[in-house]
Amino acid sequence: MEGAAIVGAGHTRFGVRPEGPRALAQEAIRRALASVDRGVDGRTIDEGFLATLGFGGWQLGNASTVVAEAVGATGLPVTRIENACASGGFAIRAAIRAVQSGAELVVVVGVEKMTDVDQARRRYWLGVSGDTEWERLSGLTFAGVYALLASRYIADRPDAREAMRRVAVKNHANGALNPNAHFQKAVSASDVDRAPRVAAPLGLFDCCPVTDGAAAVLVTRASNARRYTDTPIYVSGVGAATDRLAVQERDEFPHFAASRRAAAEAFRSAPFGPRAVQLAELHDCFTIAELLALEDVGLVGPNEAVAATNAGRTERSGDIPVNPDGGLKAKGHPIGATGVSQVYEVFVQLRGAAGARQIPGAERALAHNVGGAGATATVTIFERG
Amino acid sequence: MEGAAIVGAGHTRFGVRPEGPRALAQEAIRRALASVDRGVDGRTIDEGFLATLGFGGWQLGNASTVVAEAVGATGLPVTRIENACASGGFAIRAAIRAVQSGAELVVVVGVEKMTDVDQARRRYWLGVSGDTEWERLSGLTFAGVYALLASRYIADRPDAREAMRRVAVKNHANGALNPNAHFQKAVSASDVDRAPRVAAPLGLFDCCPVTDGAAAVLVTRASNARRYTDTPIYVSGVGAATDRLAVQERDEFPHFAASRRAAAEAFRSAPFGPRAVQLAELHDCFTIAELLALEDVGLVGPNEAVAATNAGRTERSGDIPVNPDGGLKAKGHPIGATGVSQVYEVFVQLRGAAGARQIPGAERALAHNVGGAGATATVTIFERG
Repeated sequence: MEGAAIVGAGHTRFGVRPEGPRALAQEAIRRALASVDRGVDGRTIDEGFLATLGFGGWQLGNASTVVAEAVGATGLPVTRIENACASGGFAIRAAIRAVQSGAELVVVVGVEKMTDVDQARRRYWLGVSGDTEWERLSGLTFAGVYALLASRYIADRPDAREAMRRVAVKNHANGALNPNAHFQKAVSASDVDRAPRVAAPLGLFDCCPVTDGAAAVLVTRASNARRYTDTPIYVSGVGAATDRLAVQERDEFPHFAASRRAAAEAFRSAPFGPRAVQLAELHDCFTIAELLALEDVGLVGPNEAVAATNAGRTERSGDIPVNPDGGLKAKGHPIGATGVSQVYEVFVQLRGAAGARQIPGAERALAHNVGGAGATATVTIFERG
Repeated sequence: MEGAAIVGAGHTRFGVRPEGPRALAQEAIRRALASVDRGVDGRTIDEGFLATLGFGGWQLGNASTVVAEAVGATGLPVTRIENACASGGFAIRAAIRAVQSGAELVVVVGVEKMTDVDQARRRYWLGVSGDTEWERLSGLTFAGVYALLASRYIADRPDAREAMRRVAVKNHANGALNPNAHFQKAVSASDVDRAPRVAAPLGLFDCCPVTDGAAAVLVTRASNARRYTDTPIYVSGVGAATDRLAVQERDEFPHFAASRRAAAEAFRSAPFGPRAVQLAELHDCFTIAELLALEDVGLVGPNEAVAATNAGRTERSGDIPVNPDGGLKAKGHPIGATGVSQVYEVFVQLRGAAGARQIPGAERALAHNVGGAGATATVTIFERG
């Protein structure tokens, strides 16, 4: 099977943005096109994917056409993909599939406009990615679901609260170095402890913010990649999975079988295992989620996430840096954009172009994207050529 | 490139259904699984696609997990695709891509629940698939857009009103023979003429109804198809395209460049041309749309649709039968289900299993699915083995 490679990537500033989703998507696409070293214009692109939950009451249906307009290629086939917060990861996977099926150059853009929705509607909209009957209509928000997961996780692991605190401090410290992050401000352990509770045990700094933004990447066949750049980033493996939508109906709790299945599929085709990963983008919508993901994708063994985090192994100076861009926690989590933004970060990091937040010498990376509270998940693995 | 084949298909009754979308999708999937001659259970399926606009306020995000539950394969990767009324066609194309990339057996389900939405919201929801700034917020509904297209088309073609009337009468006659159709009742030319106007020149019988329903198909690699059935239906070609979302911003009017581009791409890989097609499912959301599509996909030459229709060539007894299942017009148009339902009809027709509405001896067929008023389109071509 033909492999795939990333040859360009673009990112908007994440945060409270005055623009609508169309302008945000177009900005990310323009930046991605401009990032390609040579040989690309809109006409080179023969396929597109748009990842969005359609948040905010904008163009809710048929939005895929805005991608063709942004690329300047009227007629381009573009497919909108929506798998809640994992929309971006599923769109990246669809792009990899497309080049395996013969496409030359594929654009993937993820976008969400969230801050123009009032607080009550925001809660409703985000809740739609959980189970309607058992969760949403019972009033259970995502912070509530993750609070249940965290409570269970903490009950068996006395040091887990410290690890969650460290995830928040670490990701805010990383975000402070990322000019695209929503929050570019370090927080202290006592800031985390003193913050108001959102859903106990989760406080304000355990939760990702509500953010606007977009990210785009360009995917081509591995064998063609050097047509566009001398430093492509190659896809070593990709996996995706689902689980039952309602947390209460699952076989296990609090870990996510979908993340584990996606990682297993991704590593089946990769020439290295999870312990060889030197940098990871993990879906830290809440601090507890980063701990679960560390174990689920296999970066550490079962029950090792707390010790690894408390030993500083996931910091930028550690042996498995996690979320060097600030993660969902500090960079922000514009739903459809997140999975694509993760691949943007992998792309600039593996090329040594990440500036102040650069992880020196990283050659193998992993991106992990979750939809809802583990109902859908993707894992993609990358390496330098 | 590996080819693809359809080895099973299922369809719910279309109409006003008491069930929710989850139950409808599951019914279609169960029927599709049951239609396969041998060798399939939920565990054989390794990929899924869900096509839906998410109409009706049900599970709006992350709905793809319901497909895995229906198949009985928790963990199955499932991607939700939304390209407005062309969601089903784009999902069929994604499934073809998936088997080209190594998937063994892919389930595609399209579903929409529309009748539980009140009239005012219904107009709003459907309108989201048009352009927000130029069409929806100006109050232009889809009937309004297609009325503009029809007015322009009629202005140059004095016999076009007669052709539109014939499309309505033909598709209702066909629907009367289809036990899954929403309307199973023939109408006369004078019924059509006497019906109230919806948006002049379009009357009630020029417009498709608001309908609940689901359809599902199973796609595998062409080389594997006989593992499942002795009578697979092979995919000869597939194409997809977009156009500018707002009708006013397009290069041409009233025809759809997206349909023409999708057809050109589909026929590039097919071993026969459009004039060899013996049966077509065309996207007749309004009667005018069937006339436009006949010309756009190349079943007849430019400006020949009126004469072909008025000569009876598109009736079941004609040389290019169009919409033998009743089309969107009489069978109904549950948005996400429509593109999948078209492939269901091709499957049963090419196998000679269409009962009272069977087109005798048809061996080559085409399905054409449109999103919005031509902003997105797919064309898929099929043949018997």
